[in-house]
Amino acid sequence: MQPSTVSMPPSATPSAPDADGATTHPAAIGTVAVIGLGLIGGSVARDLGARGIRLLGHDRDPRAVRDALRAGVVGAALGDGLAGVEEADVVVVATPVDEGPRILAALAAARPAASLITDVGSTKRSIVGAAAALGLGARFVGSHPLAGDHRWGWEASRRGLFAGARVYLCPAADAAAGTVALARSLWESLGAVPEVTDADSHDELLAWSSHLPQVTATALALALGHAGVERALLGPGGRDTTRLAGSSPALWTAIACDNAVPLAAAIELLEGRLGELRAALRAGDAPRLLALFAAAREWSGADGAARPTG
Amino acid sequence: MQPSTVSMPPSATPSAPDADGATTHPAAIGTVAVIGLGLIGGSVARDLGARGIRLLGHDRDPRAVRDALRAGVVGAALGDGLAGVEEADVVVVATPVDEGPRILAALAAARPAASLITDVGSTKRSIVGAAAALGLGARFVGSHPLAGDHRWGWEASRRGLFAGARVYLCPAADAAAGTVALARSLWESLGAVPEVTDADSHDELLAWSSHLPQVTATALALALGHAGVERALLGPGGRDTTRLAGSSPALWTAIACDNAVPLAAAIELLEGRLGELRAALRAGDAPRLLALFAAAREWSGADGAARPTG
Repeated sequence: MQPSTVSMPPSATPSAPDADGATTHPAAIGTVAVIGLGLIGGSVARDLGARGIRLLGHDRDPRAVRDALRAGVVGAALGDGLAGVEEADVVVVATPVDEGPRILAALAAARPAASLITDVGSTKRSIVGAAAALGLGARFVGSHPLAGDHRWGWEASRRGLFAGARVYLCPAADAAAGTVALARSLWESLGAVPEVTDADSHDELLAWSSHLPQVTATALALALGHAGVERALLGPGGRDTTRLAGSSPALWTAIACDNAVPLAAAIELLEGRLGELRAALRAGDAPRLLALFAAAREWSGADGAARPTG
Repeated sequence: MQPSTVSMPPSATPSAPDADGATTHPAAIGTVAVIGLGLIGGSVARDLGARGIRLLGHDRDPRAVRDALRAGVVGAALGDGLAGVEEADVVVVATPVDEGPRILAALAAARPAASLITDVGSTKRSIVGAAAALGLGARFVGSHPLAGDHRWGWEASRRGLFAGARVYLCPAADAAAGTVALARSLWESLGAVPEVTDADSHDELLAWSSHLPQVTATALALALGHAGVERALLGPGGRDTTRLAGSSPALWTAIACDNAVPLAAAIELLEGRLGELRAALRAGDAPRLLALFAAAREWSGADGAARPTG
C-alpha cells in the first residue's frame, strides 16, 4: 500500500503562513491541481491519483478532461477561470511552454492558496520570470522532468513515466526554502531524481542536451524527405536517429522559440561539425574521418560495444 | 525441428555445373564458410549452425575464431590463405568493407567450388566490381542485411539477428540466376526479407537511409562533446538520437570512404536544412518553424503519436 500523501523530507519542519498568505511547509499534500492533461500532466495525475491524492484537472481540450474523469484519475474539473484551483495545495502547470505565462496570470487572478506552484516545461527562464512578475515567486519552482518522448496527449500518459528520470528544479529568485523542499519531495514521490539549478543555466544546457537533438532529428527527417527516402527504408539505427522527428510540431515550435538564442548557436556548431566530416570525405582523408568517428565514439562511452573483429 | 539445410525455392531447378566449374543450382547447402566472425558474420554462423549446417570460420582476430569454436558454432577454422574454403558450398565474406576486395582476391586464388559467394557490407559497388574483376561474378551476389547496430564483434553476435530484417541483394552483372536464387534462399532461411537491386542504386539509397543517419549521430556527438555536455545528461530522446555515435570508428571510416560522393552530397543537404531551421529561429519566424517541424513530423508518419493537448 502506498502512502496517500507526499511527505515532506525529514529535514523540513512545518512553518506558519508566509507573507503572501500561503503555507510553505505543509506536512502533507491533500489536493493537487493539474492544468494540462497531456503526456506529462496526465502522467503526473495518474501517479499522484494512485497514491490517493485528490486531483483537480483542466485542459483546453474538453476530451482530455472527460477522459481523465472517466478514467477516475481526476476527481473534478476546474471551472472557467480555473475556478476551484484555490482548493489545491499544489498546482502543476503542464501546458505547452508558450501558454505557461498566460496560465500563470489566470492562476494569480484566482488567488490560489497553494504552497507550491510548478510547471513541467522544457524551458525555464520565461516561466520563472513570469511567476516572479506576477508575485508568485515565493511559491514558484519551475520543474522540467526529462521524461518526454515523441508522443503526446492524454492517450500517451501513463503510470511510472518519471521513475528514474532526472527532473530539473529552477526556483524563482524569491522562492521559499520550504517551497523548494516541497517540489523536491513531490518529484521524489513520483520516482524522479531532482536537481536544483537556475533557469538560465537550465536553458543553456537544454539547448544542447535536448533541443539540439530534437532539431537534429527534424533536420535529418527533412533531408530524407527531400531525397524521397521513406522512413520504412531505414534500418534500426536510422529509425532511432529520426524518432524525435515525430514529436509535436506545436510543442517544439514553442520550445525552440523560447530558447532561440542558445539553440541557434548550438545548431550552428553542429553545422560546423557536419562540414568537417563532409570536407574530410571529399578530400578522401581517412585518418581525419577516423579521428572524428573515434572522438564521437569516445563521447558515447563504452555502452554496449565490443572489440572490432573481421 | 528446423530443416538441416537451406532448401532452394520451389521455382528453381538443379542444373549442371556452369562454365566456371560451379554448381549454381544445388538442392541444398551442406557447408558454409564465414570469413569475419563479427556481429554480422557471427550471427550468420550462429543461425546456420543451429540449422545443422557445417560452418568453417575465419577471422583476423584469433580470439574470435577461438570463441566461435569453443561455442560450438564453427566446426573448423580455415587455414592460412583460407585453406579449406574450397570445401564450402557457400562463402560469406563478413569483414569491414575496406577488406572485402583483398579477401575476394585470396578467395579467388584458393579456387573455391562454392555455388555462391556473398558478403554483408554496407556498400556494394566496390565489392561487386571486385568480384567481377576477379572472375567470380557468375557466383557473386553482394548482400547487405539491415541488421547492424552500434555494437560489433563476435561478442555482439546473436541468434535471430536477421529476423524480419530487409536484406539488399546486389548480383554481379554476370551472376547466374541460380546464384541469385540461392542467395535469396539463404537469407530467407535466416528470416530476412531479400530485395534485389543493383549496386549503384543501393549505394545511392544507403548514403541517405543509413550512412547519413550515422554521420548525423556522429556530428551531434562531436557538437555535444565540444560543448562539454556529457551523454548522461541527455534524456531518452537525445540518447536515441546519438546512439549510432557509439558505432565502430574503423568500420564507418571504411564505409564512408567507400561511398564518399553520395554521402558528402547528403551531408551538404542536411546542413542546408539545419541552416533553414537556424535562420527561422534567429528571425523569430514561428510559422516557418512550425511548418518545418510539421513537415518532419509528416515524414515520420503517425507512429505512436496522439493528438496534442494542454
